[in-house]
Amino acid sequence: MWEVTEDALEAIATGAAILGSGGGGNPYIGRLRVRELLRSGASIRAVKPSELADDALVVVCGAMGSPVVNFEKLPSGDEEVAALRAVEDLVGRPVDAVAPFEMGGGNSMAAMAVAGRIGVPVVDGDGMGRAFPELHMTSYAIYGGACFPAAIADERQNRVVFTSVDSPQWLERIARAATIAMGGHTGVASTPMSGAACKEVVLPDTLSLARRIGAAVEESVRSKSEPARAVLAVAGGVRYLRGKVVDVERRNTRGFARGTLTLEGIGDDRGRTIRIDFQNENLVLWEEGGARATVPDLITLISSDRGEPLTTEVVSYGCRADVLVLPCAPLMRTPRALAVVGPQAFGYDSPPVLIGSDQGVEVPQGDG
Amino acid sequence: MWEVTEDALEAIATGAAILGSGGGGNPYIGRLRVRELLRSGASIRAVKPSELADDALVVVCGAMGSPVVNFEKLPSGDEEVAALRAVEDLVGRPVDAVAPFEMGGGNSMAAMAVAGRIGVPVVDGDGMGRAFPELHMTSYAIYGGACFPAAIADERQNRVVFTSVDSPQWLERIARAATIAMGGHTGVASTPMSGAACKEVVLPDTLSLARRIGAAVEESVRSKSEPARAVLAVAGGVRYLRGKVVDVERRNTRGFARGTLTLEGIGDDRGRTIRIDFQNENLVLWEEGGARATVPDLITLISSDRGEPLTTEVVSYGCRADVLVLPCAPLMRTPRALAVVGPQAFGYDSPPVLIGSDQGVEVPQGDG
Repeated sequence: MWEVTEDALEAIATGAAILGSGGGGNPYIGRLRVRELLRSGASIRAVKPSELADDALVVVCGAMGSPVVNFEKLPSGDEEVAALRAVEDLVGRPVDAVAPFEMGGGNSMAAMAVAGRIGVPVVDGDGMGRAFPELHMTSYAIYGGACFPAAIADERQNRVVFTSVDSPQWLERIARAATIAMGGHTGVASTPMSGAACKEVVLPDTLSLARRIGAAVEESVRSKSEPARAVLAVAGGVRYLRGKVVDVERRNTRGFARGTLTLEGIGDDRGRTIRIDFQNENLVLWEEGGARATVPDLITLISSDRGEPLTTEVVSYGCRADVLVLPCAPLMRTPRALAVVGPQAFGYDSPPVLIGSDQGVEVPQGDG
Repeated sequence: MWEVTEDALEAIATGAAILGSGGGGNPYIGRLRVRELLRSGASIRAVKPSELADDALVVVCGAMGSPVVNFEKLPSGDEEVAALRAVEDLVGRPVDAVAPFEMGGGNSMAAMAVAGRIGVPVVDGDGMGRAFPELHMTSYAIYGGACFPAAIADERQNRVVFTSVDSPQWLERIARAATIAMGGHTGVASTPMSGAACKEVVLPDTLSLARRIGAAVEESVRSKSEPARAVLAVAGGVRYLRGKVVDVERRNTRGFARGTLTLEGIGDDRGRTIRIDFQNENLVLWEEGGARATVPDLITLISSDRGEPLTTEVVSYGCRADVLVLPCAPLMRTPRALAVVGPQAFGYDSPPVLIGSDQGVEVPQGDG
């Protein structure tokens, strides 16, 4: 158990947004919400999964919606609590801890905000170890029990509860459609589980990892060393390219921000051009016609000078960026997980291209 | 209280589809479902609103979705019961009677099917006295209390419950989006109310009216007299035109069947051309550039020879039809109701053009 101080919060916001792989919500808004909460006297404690009582009730919570919408429509912060209360009502007992869906600037903060507001710990872990665009792309759904009862809530009085769903994919599909109808942003709570179950399925220690990544970036800026090297020293992985964003094609369709980034290499990487397809999050990195890195590995951009996470909704023409590829969590590399979060699950023909895999995939050459 | 016999069922199916004003679901499929139920030994009793105990629990139920989808995707009949059970679970007691949302070939039958399957009476009344495309366009929503808890259910295991909504319009919007995501058809239950409340807000005796209209059409066919005259003798209103359908423009968008019918007059009406705009149901009847009849009055087509209801999903080029305009229920003509079900609520500039109104509207000349 550790206390989320204001310093820790700043580091987590940066680190989680880097883990967010282009998505996971806007880091600035989320951080401001939680900082307000801390300054108003709330305490937020992070609990290691191993510290959970086996009979504790853990509920997963966060926000749903396109990050572009969240950027324009500031969440009030009440939605996630309302969704959580709806799940508690159905389960018939109060929650003992909340767990983040994903690491990302928004959803790491959303879970911490709920924890601080209702006075329970936040689990130091999550279901993705990064961000993914869809609700069922979590270790909770891949390895866990029922994702319901689940609930979504908006800033009005609309409370939509899923007392049963055919599969986590159906929850994603229906909740996404409802979220769009509700204005593009909702708070979500789902997958009530025991502490014992949570230990089995959560990706552990990812809030701590985000905190260490964020702290390393801060230190690199203070010491005027390279932020990319600092991130890689903590998270592993490689710098695939240092470059400049020369094109951003982005459209908001069916509740997702979809598009493609194009970067041209600079310095040692001059003459190279890469494209990155995204659906809220970066999915596939292409160079010379081939996929060089794919989901579930993390493809993430930071500004070359200050290590700022460049999420898909803020990245723009002219940004100088280091493109990092970080290894995903081991639980997300199994055949069972790859069926849900591998490139084929997103409609690509390419098999997974993963760092350090022994499946014959290419390991990109980097300087990390 | 009266028993819905197989004969009564046939008459109600025809009459409700005529009251459905082009929508309200397919009369054939709905009737087959309920006939099966009766033949399997179920009993269906219709209860007058005045016969309801004041403390009875009444829940409104029916089907949601575009009639075109319902035509292609046969409902299993379990959806409405599942939705009703979800509402019962939230209210915490079993229902004493179910009430139809609307009169229409599908939704009159859906409520009777639920009544027969769970062994409670169906209320002889409904919330529209016709069919309307949206869930909030009912006297229940216009004059009643909360429309929630409400629930929708599909033929899979998906159960979506609305424990709170900001307004009936929000229920319509979110449930419609969820229904589309669930494949275009769901069973719906909403607006749990007391028997006392139901007496205040229901449009009474509309199942009986449907039955009398249907019986009159059957008798006219037997006696080789004009079905249109038989309908008008029971329901009031006028025959606006006898004609032939010369164009049907129809598209299925956002869960609705939208389009325009064009008819050319025949016989005494030769030389006249009318257009009818529909959104599931017929909304506005146009002739020579002006609106000659509008919602909430009923604009409904029957085949000239046999009095068969020509709903928007079955009407086609070449159909010979009598276009009838029937007066809506008095409760649907108040300013409060017209704000929800008048032509302006559907995006038209035209004020309501209603039969026999003293608001200066035109009363079409008919032969009824």
